[in-house]
Amino acid sequence: MYRTNTCGELNLNHAGQRVTLSGWVQRTRDLGGLTFVDLRDRYGITQLFFNMETNAALCNEARALGREYVIQVEGVVAERSNKNLKMPTGEIEIMVSRIIILNKAELPPFTIEDDTDGGDELRMKYRYLDLRRNAVRSNLELRHRMAQEIRKYLDSKQFLEVETPVLMKSTPEGARDFVVPSRMNRGQFYALPQSPQTFKQILMVAGFDRYFQIVKCFRDEDLRADRQPEFTQIDCEMSFVTQDDILHTFEGLVQHLFQEVKGVTLDKPFRRMSFNEAMGSYGSDKPDLRFDMKIHDLSALAKGQGFGVFDNAEYTGAVCAPGCAGYTRKQIDELTDFVKRPQIGAQGLIHVKFHADGTIQSSVDKFFTPVRLKEWGHLLGAQPGDLLLVMAGKRNKTLVQLGELRLEMGNRCGLRGKNKYAPLWVIDFPLFEWDDETQRFYAMHHPFTSPKSEDIPYFDTDPGRIRANAYDCVMNGVELGGGSIRIHDRTLQHKMFQTLGFTPEQAEYQFGFLLNAFKYGAPPHGGIAFGFDRLVSMFAGLDSIRDTIAFPKNNAGRDVMIDSPSTISDEQLKELGIQLEV
Amino acid sequence: MYRTNTCGELNLNHAGQRVTLSGWVQRTRDLGGLTFVDLRDRYGITQLFFNMETNAALCNEARALGREYVIQVEGVVAERSNKNLKMPTGEIEIMVSRIIILNKAELPPFTIEDDTDGGDELRMKYRYLDLRRNAVRSNLELRHRMAQEIRKYLDSKQFLEVETPVLMKSTPEGARDFVVPSRMNRGQFYALPQSPQTFKQILMVAGFDRYFQIVKCFRDEDLRADRQPEFTQIDCEMSFVTQDDILHTFEGLVQHLFQEVKGVTLDKPFRRMSFNEAMGSYGSDKPDLRFDMKIHDLSALAKGQGFGVFDNAEYTGAVCAPGCAGYTRKQIDELTDFVKRPQIGAQGLIHVKFHADGTIQSSVDKFFTPVRLKEWGHLLGAQPGDLLLVMAGKRNKTLVQLGELRLEMGNRCGLRGKNKYAPLWVIDFPLFEWDDETQRFYAMHHPFTSPKSEDIPYFDTDPGRIRANAYDCVMNGVELGGGSIRIHDRTLQHKMFQTLGFTPEQAEYQFGFLLNAFKYGAPPHGGIAFGFDRLVSMFAGLDSIRDTIAFPKNNAGRDVMIDSPSTISDEQLKELGIQLEV
Repeated sequence: MYRTNTCGELNLNHAGQRVTLSGWVQRTRDLGGLTFVDLRDRYGITQLFFNMETNAALCNEARALGREYVIQVEGVVAERSNKNLKMPTGEIEIMVSRIIILNKAELPPFTIEDDTDGGDELRMKYRYLDLRRNAVRSNLELRHRMAQEIRKYLDSKQFLEVETPVLMKSTPEGARDFVVPSRMNRGQFYALPQSPQTFKQILMVAGFDRYFQIVKCFRDEDLRADRQPEFTQIDCEMSFVTQDDILHTFEGLVQHLFQEVKGVTLDKPFRRMSFNEAMGSYGSDKPDLRFDMKIHDLSALAKGQGFGVFDNAEYTGAVCAPGCAGYTRKQIDELTDFVKRPQIGAQGLIHVKFHADGTIQSSVDKFFTPVRLKEWGHLLGAQPGDLLLVMAGKRNKTLVQLGELRLEMGNRCGLRGKNKYAPLWVIDFPLFEWDDETQRFYAMHHPFTSPKSEDIPYFDTDPGRIRANAYDCVMNGVELGGGSIRIHDRTLQHKMFQTLGFTPEQAEYQFGFLLNAFKYGAPPHGGIAFGFDRLVSMFAGLDSIRDTIAFPKNNAGRDVMIDSPSTISDEQLKELGIQLEV
Repeated sequence: MYRTNTCGELNLNHAGQRVTLSGWVQRTRDLGGLTFVDLRDRYGITQLFFNMETNAALCNEARALGREYVIQVEGVVAERSNKNLKMPTGEIEIMVSRIIILNKAELPPFTIEDDTDGGDELRMKYRYLDLRRNAVRSNLELRHRMAQEIRKYLDSKQFLEVETPVLMKSTPEGARDFVVPSRMNRGQFYALPQSPQTFKQILMVAGFDRYFQIVKCFRDEDLRADRQPEFTQIDCEMSFVTQDDILHTFEGLVQHLFQEVKGVTLDKPFRRMSFNEAMGSYGSDKPDLRFDMKIHDLSALAKGQGFGVFDNAEYTGAVCAPGCAGYTRKQIDELTDFVKRPQIGAQGLIHVKFHADGTIQSSVDKFFTPVRLKEWGHLLGAQPGDLLLVMAGKRNKTLVQLGELRLEMGNRCGLRGKNKYAPLWVIDFPLFEWDDETQRFYAMHHPFTSPKSEDIPYFDTDPGRIRANAYDCVMNGVELGGGSIRIHDRTLQHKMFQTLGFTPEQAEYQFGFLLNAFKYGAPPHGGIAFGFDRLVSMFAGLDSIRDTIAFPKNNAGRDVMIDSPSTISDEQLKELGIQLEV
């Protein structure tokens, strides 16, 4: 037996007990006659005590222990004279009578501390050491806890967890697939799933009624920051449900998680907002509602006063930043630079200061009298001391730019606190997006999303106008998940493929099995998928998903710890019937 | 809202309630004036009632419903006159007032009944219809339940579920890998994991202490019956444990599952048996202990009596089949044919009948007197009425043949009941297997398995003699899982690789990251993996794992429902930098 207890559980109640502990040497402190060793395992740290006077040999053994040595000790639990009430074991220490070195350790390339001196690359190469750090391990403990609670909730709601295949079929629509050459079927390939979408719909046709899976998905995309080639989804589907049934069930899931894992109570139902309102009032399809600061349409008030920028703009809009009228020239310049960055791409920024003394000062004083500016302030509900920020241009583009500016002002005004949670359903998304480059419609969600029944006539007249039964779950400006009520009617599904530019043959080749399944009694159904990595990162208060994943890949899709991908042997290639292109 | 209740929950307590149900039409019975429709969903079947006299139009609607139509009905719960107490809803029926057809269905290619008329191929092609069958769906409900209970148990024992990468690195040792060409790293490949073995060991080095994962694994093997290219393991690892700690923890898991899922109480601790005893007494490393019928070594008694077969054999052994002395010539011939099948490959079978009247009759009467045969019977504890079956040849081969014969006799004697459970740990496996063909040792378990410390000296003298700290969990002759205490010492790991014929460069190339990790304080650790598909099939009483998997592949590795694998476009191949060999 290697231990009677872990390093995180002993306290004064155990005083006098003889115990055996095993763990890693966090550090050794040599205080002349006394030596202290901090012994660490996943559960905590326990202080070991050695006295030169009572046992010089053992004390010298302790002093010789290196950082990260794996040791086993026997001893008696004793009350500390110098208590540390910040740690659970801080009232006791172990009077050690025996040390066994289980394994030595070379000096780690970085310190195993919350604030490590290791850079990103080094941490990833030695991920097994990085994972020893409390800060990283606790994220994975949180991930474990969340996964268990998700299952507990969904199981209690009669969802069945069903494993769908990892070796499935390549579909050209959507993102790029990872493919797997088949040795037994020469010249043919499996594909790794971008999502189990078709399989979960098949399960509904199969009468499974409620399905979920916490499942790895794969996309061979060029990796922007914070994307991983393999990622994890909470994938769900339900039969005989309306959109409201789904929103109700899954705001219940989010609420359950916040309650059980974070002890935070979220009120139900979550707020619902249409896509059009989200774009028009927040310049985003995932508005951060921790603060208000709505975007207002100034077009009517701004036009026709001789200011060319507004006169020539399709749209003029503004946000009102509370208490920012005192912004200096430098601060205003910073904001102007912010919106002019290529990522945002605005032409400029106009401001109106509503000073506390009632005076008004703006960068368009030449064109607009204080009376006119007051009208603006009135529209936006500006109070004395507030700052109006105004932008103009093409409507959609300007709204998005104002949305970014709004978030920036939210940050500057301290309105986006990490311990505040504003959940939201964004609904009524458009069914299609038009792509100018390829001159065709794309499915905004995916080709199985159903249109609102009252919008179906627009298929023949104005497909861009059709609203979908699609919804996103948004929290603090982050999209946690999204889904839709699916099409369960074959004719409608064919119409959808047709509008997306599929020939009947293409539709048959790619989705024939699903269309075929729909012949045999498909129930009305819908579902949702949450990004699990993202959800964990929100719970952990992290900005990136990287440290919610035990073994992430870098931006080149490489695992630098195991040095993968790697070359394979000629024999392997030959067996698979493929050659490398030179 | 599509329904107020499911088709499985209504009973007499709901009588008089107005309800809405949705589901599939299982069947329609037209009894002249009355029509009954069985409405089915995942939860059960509810009878719908229609009366020609009270509502002819509605009754005619009901009569026109086809099998597997998806419908929604409104009506009132009423007590049945003709109760069916075999089904939970059998005391009620719905007096329907409205039918809405949600979706029509073509006639399914086979019947959706427990005993279907669909053959294997048809069932797989239309798996979504096959899954509607109670018999198939209940296996997947069982699988779900087992997965939840496994997590509950392991979570309660402080195991953390950690997701390891699916895109990992190819290792030539072991079975063939599925590989994934990397677009971003041209000419390089990921491999799909055959098991997360190295990652779980890395997690122990990382101090995670207790890890588990219910995880898909992949092997590109020629598929014998009952193998799948992707399969699911319950993968576990623990630190600071001895073999006994692991056996104790995981017999607890098996016990928990049997108790919670099947209501069967298994006694702990499970029986332990050495590999040598298992082979010597049962001719198998996974003996079925639901019955005794041990193999006994007859070599000493059989030799030197002038019977060439025994005299020239390395080994002669026998089993005693209780109450089978009355076997006819035909039955004995059947057994002889059984052992001579190529899968078993014996030369012949000798029998001795201990008749109830005390007489003895054998196929070797010419060489052995009744007195001698009585000695055999004595050794095997044969009673009057028993049948001794004797085989001779090379020791190991003969034991395996006798083991197969033993199982066959167990079947014939009705000793292998499906509701009897005999769990067992087989321990003390050899560390190495010698392969005559390649003239080298292979790891019997895998290269990370630790030898018994007292056997380490044999590395230099007789590696074949080294016993491993390896164990298999066996139930009713089926291996449910297996594992080992791992090597945590770099020097010993190097010695292991050396004995397996790895050059230091090969070891470094393939497992460098693990050997490197061992430099930084690896704890003593060990683990186990259970075959989840197999475990479910045992719980379901199935002979095959196929129907424990929602979407299995056939023996050619094909998913016939989605028609995968399939060709991919030239553009995809070009992007990946590979060509098909012509």
